[in-house]
Amino acid sequence: MDNFDFYSPTHFVFGKDRENEAGQMIKKFGGTKVLLHYGGGSAVRSGLIDRVKASIEKAGLEYIELGGVQPNPLSGLVYEGIELCRKEGIDFIMAVGGGSVIDSSKAIAAGTVYDGDFWDFYCGKEIEEALPIGTVLTIAAAGSEGSPDSVITNEDGMMKRGASGDAIRPRFSILNPALTQTLPAFQTACGVTDIIAHLYERYLTNTKEVEVTDRLIEGLMMTMIHEGPRVIENPDNYDARANIMWAGMMAHNNSCGVGRTQDWNSHQLEHELSALYNVAHGAGLAVVMPAVFTYVMKHDVMRFAQVASRVWGCSMDYNNPELTAKAGIGALKNFVKSIGMPVNFEELGAKEEDIPKLVEALCYGNGRDGSVNGFVKLDTEDCRKIYELML
Amino acid sequence: MDNFDFYSPTHFVFGKDRENEAGQMIKKFGGTKVLLHYGGGSAVRSGLIDRVKASIEKAGLEYIELGGVQPNPLSGLVYEGIELCRKEGIDFIMAVGGGSVIDSSKAIAAGTVYDGDFWDFYCGKEIEEALPIGTVLTIAAAGSEGSPDSVITNEDGMMKRGASGDAIRPRFSILNPALTQTLPAFQTACGVTDIIAHLYERYLTNTKEVEVTDRLIEGLMMTMIHEGPRVIENPDNYDARANIMWAGMMAHNNSCGVGRTQDWNSHQLEHELSALYNVAHGAGLAVVMPAVFTYVMKHDVMRFAQVASRVWGCSMDYNNPELTAKAGIGALKNFVKSIGMPVNFEELGAKEEDIPKLVEALCYGNGRDGSVNGFVKLDTEDCRKIYELML
Repeated sequence: MDNFDFYSPTHFVFGKDRENEAGQMIKKFGGTKVLLHYGGGSAVRSGLIDRVKASIEKAGLEYIELGGVQPNPLSGLVYEGIELCRKEGIDFIMAVGGGSVIDSSKAIAAGTVYDGDFWDFYCGKEIEEALPIGTVLTIAAAGSEGSPDSVITNEDGMMKRGASGDAIRPRFSILNPALTQTLPAFQTACGVTDIIAHLYERYLTNTKEVEVTDRLIEGLMMTMIHEGPRVIENPDNYDARANIMWAGMMAHNNSCGVGRTQDWNSHQLEHELSALYNVAHGAGLAVVMPAVFTYVMKHDVMRFAQVASRVWGCSMDYNNPELTAKAGIGALKNFVKSIGMPVNFEELGAKEEDIPKLVEALCYGNGRDGSVNGFVKLDTEDCRKIYELML
Repeated sequence: MDNFDFYSPTHFVFGKDRENEAGQMIKKFGGTKVLLHYGGGSAVRSGLIDRVKASIEKAGLEYIELGGVQPNPLSGLVYEGIELCRKEGIDFIMAVGGGSVIDSSKAIAAGTVYDGDFWDFYCGKEIEEALPIGTVLTIAAAGSEGSPDSVITNEDGMMKRGASGDAIRPRFSILNPALTQTLPAFQTACGVTDIIAHLYERYLTNTKEVEVTDRLIEGLMMTMIHEGPRVIENPDNYDARANIMWAGMMAHNNSCGVGRTQDWNSHQLEHELSALYNVAHGAGLAVVMPAVFTYVMKHDVMRFAQVASRVWGCSMDYNNPELTAKAGIGALKNFVKSIGMPVNFEELGAKEEDIPKLVEALCYGNGRDGSVNGFVKLDTEDCRKIYELML
C-alpha cells in the first residue's frame, strides 16, 4: 500500500426532511450572508428552494440568489457568481442541486477570495483558500458533496477541466434520498453509472496488495448493481435511493480509494465527449468505460478477472482469465444498457468524424504532451482506437 | 434506512515513517504545549517515543510526559493526567500507543477543561469540549484513532464504562503499519478479533434494507479473514498490516455503520470479563461473540445466514437457513481459534462460579435496569445463559 493522507471533514446530514436544517448548519459553520446557488426548473417547482430559503430565514441569516447552473457547468456563470459575492459581501455559499451546482459553487468559493482568474485553479494552481460551502444534494451521482473536486467547462474553447483542494470540500452536505425520487429515469441511471465509474476508476490500480480498498470498492459496486435496477423499476423506493446516495458519497470521498494509484482515464475520455456534445456525463461514461476497459485489460488481466468474479458473479477461469475478464466487461455493458444508458457513439449522439478532434483536445488540450496517464498511459493512437471501439 | 449524521473530521496520516510528522501536525492544529501520553515498555524501547519527541522538538513545541497507561486503562492515571495538564497549562494531548492510551488521552482531554469529575462523562453526561488530541497508533484494534469513543475502567468497583463525543475525536491520527510489526502474535490476534467484533456489532441490526452498509461491512470482514492469518504467519508482512490497519479505522469511524441500529451486546458482555479478570479485550470478544450470536440467532436467522454465505463462504440453505447461520458462527469460532484466541471460559481464565457476579454487574451496574439492550434485549436470565454457553 502507498503512503497517503485522508481528510474528509464534511458533516453529513442524511435522511428525510433534513433540508430544513440548512439554515442552522450554515450558522453553525459561521455563515451570515449566503449565496443560494442552484440550477432552476425542478428545484424551484418542487418547492425545495423555498424550503431552504425558509430555513435560512428562520436561522436569521441573509441571502441572495443565483440560479441557472446548467449540466456541465460553465465558466460564465462562475465569473458572474464571483462578482456577485464580492459586491454583496457573501461569506457562505449554499449549493442546492447536483454535482454541477456544487462544482459551480466550489469554483465561485475559490474564485471570490482569489486575486487572479479562477480558471488558474483548473489549470493546476493550488487552491489555498475559499469561502465555506454547504450543499443540499438532489442527485446521487457526482460525489461532489463529499469530495474536494470540481469540474467546470470553459466556454472559451469548450474545455472541461477539473480542480481539487481541501479548501473547497463542503463544510456540510445534506443528503435527503427522497429529493431524488422525482428525478427522470434517465438522470437516475446517469447517476448510477457515474457512481460505478468512480468505483472502477479507483479499482484500476498499479498498486499491489490493496485488499481492504478492493473489498470496499467491490461492496459499493454490488450495492449499485443491486439498487440501480430497483430505482429504475420503482422511483419511489426510498431505501434503494438511500443506499445509492450513501454509496455515491462513499465512492468519491476517497475513503475506499486511498493508498493506491487510480485510473481516471475513462473520465478524461468522457470529458471531451460532454464538452463537445453536451451529453450527460453518466451517459458518456456508459459508452466510454467498456471501450477503455477492453483496450487496457491486457495490462492486468487478473484485476479485470477479479472484479468479474467477485462483483459480477462470472465464474473464474484460472486457465484463461482473459475470458473471465471479458465476461465482466460484457456484464457491465449489459447492466448500463439495462438501466437505459447508451452503449455506442450513435446512441450517445457522437460522430465518428469528430474522433480526430476529440483525440486532439484530449491529448494536447490544457498543456498535455500528447497522452493521458492513468492505469495505463494512452497516446493519441491508443485514444483513437478506444474512441473507435465506441462506434 | 434511518436518518443519521456522520462527521469524521480526523486527518489521517498513513504510511511508513510518518510518526516523524507528529510535531508539525500538532502545530497545524494549534498545540503549543503538549502532554505526551503513552504506555511504556515497547514504545520506549523501540525508540518510537524518542522519534516523536524529536519531531515535537523540531516543530519548536514544549512537552511533558505521562507514561504508564495499562491495557484496560484506569481512572487513577486519568485523574493524574488531568491534574498535570491543569498545572502545566497543556493545550494539546499527543497519544502514542493503542486504544488504551488513546482512550486514556480522551478522558484526560475532556476532564481537563471540565469543572466536575471526568467520570460523569462515563455515566452519560455529554462531552461538550475537550483539549485537542493527536495519536500515533501502535496497534490496529480498537479503532479509537478515528472514533468519538473512550472506554475507561474505574478502580472503584472495577467498572468498565464508555463515553462518546465529537469533541474527543482525534484531530489527527498517524497510522504507520510498520509500527505494528513488532507486536506479539497474541496481541495482533486480539486486534484482529476486536476489529471483527466492531463489524459484527454493526452488522446485527433491526433496520431493514441497508445494502450499502451490509456490503461495506462484509468487505471489511473479508479483508480481516484474508489478512489476519497472513500477519500471524509472517509478522513483517507490511501490506497485510496496512490492510488491517485501514480496515480497523474504517470498521469504527462508523462510515460503514450509519443509518442502522447497532448491537454492542457482545462488547457489554465482554467489558464485565475484562473488568473482573483484566483479560485482553480481543480475547474476551473471541469467547463472547459465538455465544451471543448462537443465543440471539433465532431473532433474525436470515441475517446470520447472509453473513455466513457472503463472508464465510457457507452454502446458503434456503430451506433451512438456520443451518447456514450456525455454520457461519462455527466458521467465526474456528477462525479466532486458528489465530490463537481462546474460545471458552477456561482458556480465557474466567470462572463459572463468577457468572452471577458478572450478570449482576452487567445488568444492574451503572444505573441499568436489569437488562442490556442491543440487537436483542437481554435480561439477567438471558445473560446468564449466554455466559454459560462460554463454558
